[in-house]
Amino acid sequence: MKAVILNKTKDIAIVDDFLIEEYLGPNDVRIAVKHVGICGSDVHYYEEGKIGPYIITEPMVLGHEASGIVIEVGKQVTHLVVGDRVCMEPGIPDFTSKASRLGMYNLDPNVRFWATPPIHGCLRESVVHPASLTFKVPDSVSLEEAAMVEPMAIGIYAATKAQIKPGDIALVLGAGTIGIVTTLAVLAGGCSKVIVSDIQQPKLDLIRSIAPVKTVNITKNDLADIVAHETNGWGVDIVFEASGNKKAFSTIFHYVCPGGKVVIIGIPSEPALFDVPAAQAKEAITIPIFRYANMYPKTLALLESGKVDLKPCISRRFPFSKAIEAFELAAKHQPDIVKIQIYL
Amino acid sequence: MKAVILNKTKDIAIVDDFLIEEYLGPNDVRIAVKHVGICGSDVHYYEEGKIGPYIITEPMVLGHEASGIVIEVGKQVTHLVVGDRVCMEPGIPDFTSKASRLGMYNLDPNVRFWATPPIHGCLRESVVHPASLTFKVPDSVSLEEAAMVEPMAIGIYAATKAQIKPGDIALVLGAGTIGIVTTLAVLAGGCSKVIVSDIQQPKLDLIRSIAPVKTVNITKNDLADIVAHETNGWGVDIVFEASGNKKAFSTIFHYVCPGGKVVIIGIPSEPALFDVPAAQAKEAITIPIFRYANMYPKTLALLESGKVDLKPCISRRFPFSKAIEAFELAAKHQPDIVKIQIYL
Amino acid sequence: MKAVILNKTKDIAIVDDFLIEEYLGPNDVRIAVKHVGICGSDVHYYEEGKIGPYIITEPMVLGHEASGIVIEVGKQVTHLVVGDRVCMEPGIPDFTSKASRLGMYNLDPNVRFWATPPIHGCLRESVVHPASLTFKVPDSVSLEEAAMVEPMAIGIYAATKAQIKPGDIALVLGAGTIGIVTTLAVLAGGCSKVIVSDIQQPKLDLIRSIAPVKTVNITKNDLADIVAHETNGWGVDIVFEASGNKKAFSTIFHYVCPGGKVVIIGIPSEPALFDVPAAQAKEAITIPIFRYANMYPKTLALLESGKVDLKPCISRRFPFSKAIEAFELAAKHQPDIVKIQIYL
Amino acid sequence: MKAVILNKTKDIAIVDDFLIEEYLGPNDVRIAVKHVGICGSDVHYYEEGKIGPYIITEPMVLGHEASGIVIEVGKQVTHLVVGDRVCMEPGIPDFTSKASRLGMYNLDPNVRFWATPPIHGCLRESVVHPASLTFKVPDSVSLEEAAMVEPMAIGIYAATKAQIKPGDIALVLGAGTIGIVTTLAVLAGGCSKVIVSDIQQPKLDLIRSIAPVKTVNITKNDLADIVAHETNGWGVDIVFEASGNKKAFSTIFHYVCPGGKVVIIGIPSEPALFDVPAAQAKEAITIPIFRYANMYPKTLALLESGKVDLKPCISRRFPFSKAIEAFELAAKHQPDIVKIQIYL
Repeated sequence: MKAVILNKTKDIAIVDDFLIEEYLGPNDVRIAVKHVGICGSDVHYYEEGKIGPYIITEPMVLGHEASGIVIEVGKQVTHLVVGDRVCMEPGIPDFTSKASRLGMYNLDPNVRFWATPPIHGCLRESVVHPASLTFKVPDSVSLEEAAMVEPMAIGIYAATKAQIKPGDIALVLGAGTIGIVTTLAVLAGGCSKVIVSDIQQPKLDLIRSIAPVKTVNITKNDLADIVAHETNGWGVDIVFEASGNKKAFSTIFHYVCPGGKVVIIGIPSEPALFDVPAAQAKEAITIPIFRYANMYPKTLALLESGKVDLKPCISRRFPFSKAIEAFELAAKHQPDIVKIQIYL
Repeated sequence: MKAVILNKTKDIAIVDDFLIEEYLGPNDVRIAVKHVGICGSDVHYYEEGKIGPYIITEPMVLGHEASGIVIEVGKQVTHLVVGDRVCMEPGIPDFTSKASRLGMYNLDPNVRFWATPPIHGCLRESVVHPASLTFKVPDSVSLEEAAMVEPMAIGIYAATKAQIKPGDIALVLGAGTIGIVTTLAVLAGGCSKVIVSDIQQPKLDLIRSIAPVKTVNITKNDLADIVAHETNGWGVDIVFEASGNKKAFSTIFHYVCPGGKVVIIGIPSEPALFDVPAAQAKEAITIPIFRYANMYPKTLALLESGKVDLKPCISRRFPFSKAIEAFELAAKHQPDIVKIQIYL
Repeated sequence: MKAVILNKTKDIAIVDDFLIEEYLGPNDVRIAVKHVGICGSDVHYYEEGKIGPYIITEPMVLGHEASGIVIEVGKQVTHLVVGDRVCMEPGIPDFTSKASRLGMYNLDPNVRFWATPPIHGCLRESVVHPASLTFKVPDSVSLEEAAMVEPMAIGIYAATKAQIKPGDIALVLGAGTIGIVTTLAVLAGGCSKVIVSDIQQPKLDLIRSIAPVKTVNITKNDLADIVAHETNGWGVDIVFEASGNKKAFSTIFHYVCPGGKVVIIGIPSEPALFDVPAAQAKEAITIPIFRYANMYPKTLALLESGKVDLKPCISRRFPFSKAIEAFELAAKHQPDIVKIQIYL
Repeated sequence: MKAVILNKTKDIAIVDDFLIEEYLGPNDVRIAVKHVGICGSDVHYYEEGKIGPYIITEPMVLGHEASGIVIEVGKQVTHLVVGDRVCMEPGIPDFTSKASRLGMYNLDPNVRFWATPPIHGCLRESVVHPASLTFKVPDSVSLEEAAMVEPMAIGIYAATKAQIKPGDIALVLGAGTIGIVTTLAVLAGGCSKVIVSDIQQPKLDLIRSIAPVKTVNITKNDLADIVAHETNGWGVDIVFEASGNKKAFSTIFHYVCPGGKVVIIGIPSEPALFDVPAAQAKEAITIPIFRYANMYPKTLALLESGKVDLKPCISRRFPFSKAIEAFELAAKHQPDIVKIQIYL
């Protein structure tokens, strides 16, 4: 089938006859892929050929943010029919593992996640997928938006894990894609005010055009002062670390209130310093998250309700035939681009 | 001072020289009262002379939903100054009690709550109040709205106790004032969809004019069917019982999803039936609430943010001199009136 | 194979050649059954031929509390080998269902539970079972005790759901088998004191011989007075309703403290009255439970540690050839018998 | 009155006529001090003259772990009478502060804590104390043990914040006094197994003589290997960091299970490294604690029940007249001594 494959670092190709044999089990569906977003991890594999221990050694199909249309349905599937517009969770766990039985299937070490070597991604004509991880898209939500459910699910998961109380004030460190989906999620999830900080002004300008937030360029302002001012000196209820910057990480307890929470979404590439006495003086808990679990239905419900609008986040669209151009653009990391999508 | 007093059942009066001696302690403020909402409990005392064990035996000043302006400040008060626009929590606990030390000051049996015999209410020229229960109103929030913070705090408390997850679907049983504030709170607090049921069509029409909800007149429709349809057969994540009707109470587990929650705000006057096997089959927990604690800052933050708009809830305004007319209107229980306020 | 079957009400038989074809899947194990406890539900099917909607229409093998020895292992099973001493969770869910994905596999409506029509139980020579629901028994725990893990898991689940804080005081309503396992669980789970009430003195005497509890015969004493005395007037932190008596259910909020919890384990046969204002005045949440999930490893760990000793709970043992006598004894409901086991 | 005062570093004195004027307010009690334990912080002030920002500039009475007998009672006190045996929480917050209203009075920045400059401690004849922070000691608990409630409350608080589930396995890093009280607390609080690690063998030998734990001398063994072995490769449910060692801190996520918890009790003197990707892969939350709140009643209940036995922790007793010797011994930091007490 047609597919976008990564052979090795910087060596990407569109092929017409990539061989993937996929058996349709009784609980599976086959989906014609329609829209695929390019994730930072796709770009990272493209640029570096690996992420941590995951190394490209064989050609691998890229892509894990997808929507499509059901074209074949397994015998025991009851909630989907051919023709359904759907989006798919890209990580397939062993549902009988200990982590899965505990409701944390995202932590199952045997998860097979699209476009994480050696598992192929979904930037191809069709995929076979477990029906239990395939979700019908409401009529009012486009397939473009549906392909944004995957990154948005990270934001919704962060907001869910934070156990936001209505009216909470949040601080989001980092205004990149993860910062944006987190911001949209916590606004939809009950926060009364969101402060977003970054070092790049274009990113801050972009997020302010998407959501009603207060932005802080920390190259020019003292974030702790602004947080104190915005919270009557109490501190924010929740800090979302979405920058993956170890310096930002080391400051998290400067901003949070007594009894507050810090959600760690960004992944610093090096060990980061943790200010234990500051954390203790506030008894602020730290909640690290890894991908998400059980977030697709809620994310789709928020899109359907209009409480989350992802349309402004889809910055550029490329046809499948120009997928390589799409990746080349993505690799430029322009601060004014949120999401690039490829359509089939 | 001027005050609206209830002498006994149906015997209400505006007096000019009601004697209340109030000493301004070092941690107190004195507030010129400006707006006072009439609560269902005020009307109940007016109509019946009592609520449960609380009986009017001496003339009592009515009113507990108030905003005003600070006119005098105790020596140790640091967060308020004369001239501040404020609203006040009407229940004053013993902050050193066991319940208060545990953060549940609303459950302290020694709480002195305005307009709950023998404690006078706030429908009078001025009150002395603990500064710790007096909250500055943001510039963008009017004093009318600030006098709505008290009933709104109940809705925000219900939404807080429910631990809403972003995208949850809620069902609110009862479209009266409590149903309205609960609906506004859970929409602001992260729900993607709210279904509201009642037996009075005018109340349902009113709430739909205030908030984007799906309404169900249960005299004409099967609520369980509609809930099943709106939730793909799963049930709502949270039921808010805001009707105080024992028949409604007995149905709560028909609508809730497995692992869901039921928040009990309404107070049935008689013991209600609880369907234990239905509750068990879903492991749905029941969360009863009593007034609120620590809700004023968050409620004010949500008003300031614009996420909650209480202006459409203020149905009628009366000057202090026409307070008796205001109570007479309130006692008519018109389904198209949410809140009646008196201003000084 | 040999099996104990229930043909219809009061018609039980030991057969030598009951035909059950069981295919050993790659993730299954085959287990030679060694000990099986008789549960109240087994006796109920024996006496009434049904439990609620579950009706015996075809001969059904009884029993769901079992331990045994692994005799065959599926190809993909890694944590068990032939010869392992094991006990088994009797409910097999669809692990890909929505409830299971959320970690609540016990609430999956498609659970197939041993000895719940039309699913056969385990009172037979051997069973094939998912390896993920089959747990290795520590060397220091006998197979008799291992067959008690099933009922004990209910107590541990109740204690887990209660979120006991170290030093909490608990009240257990009902001193039957469920009351006993709950008591043992909450003592092991951190409570400093447990009060147990019942109307049958022999049951109270029995539980006091097993665990260091304070017992209250409510036919002779006022339970509310005793609870007040034992808790300095504050109330118990947690009430465990283990009687299934609707009259007991209607009193739960008399005993619980402000902010306390009520765990509902017993199943009243009729709707029970719920005292809403009492629940609200204390904001005491109600937590109903249904069987258990993820409890076997923790229950086994507590047995291994010696913190829970189930040996005194095994009152009588019968060989398989005398299984009918065992059921006849169980049907006498003697208050001095906790558990009757059958061994193969 | 008689008092043990610290003039400056290494300059300690017993004085007969130290002047402390204490007014007995209506909600206070006056207590004749009977037993006072020496805390590591007392020794630290003695050795260094300061702890962090808290510096001895004036002579200060030492001691904050105390029990005594009520000798005078304020007018509004109802739960205590002259002659009551009591122990006292040493931190007095502003109960009307925002943190206190939220139930986190230990985080109130205005807490006045005994023997934290400039607040005098309790190593003196008598103290006046809020009745709400003074707790009656059960008859079966000695005043010696009651003076151990203060350090034990830290362990109980750690166990409470950890939300132990019955049967959890815990790892305690550090076998000093905090490690011991934590170990006793988590055993009483529901753990089935506790592993304790340290680098000093005498400390490990001591803790094993007090509690049924598995000890690991990490200078000789690989702790991660042992944890994996003891938990079937899953990891411990909860890590308690009680060493205050930054190297130990940097390893916490090596031991914890997916979805597990890390409670931070020890206070490293320098910023410590936090392994973000390891924390994320397990979604293990970090819970730092600061002193305790609301723990005295539960700690006393556990002592009364016999579930916690502190008698083996009282290593040495000195009369008041030999208090200086007591401090000199404490300053030797002998690994075989847990607690030194002074009696009056």
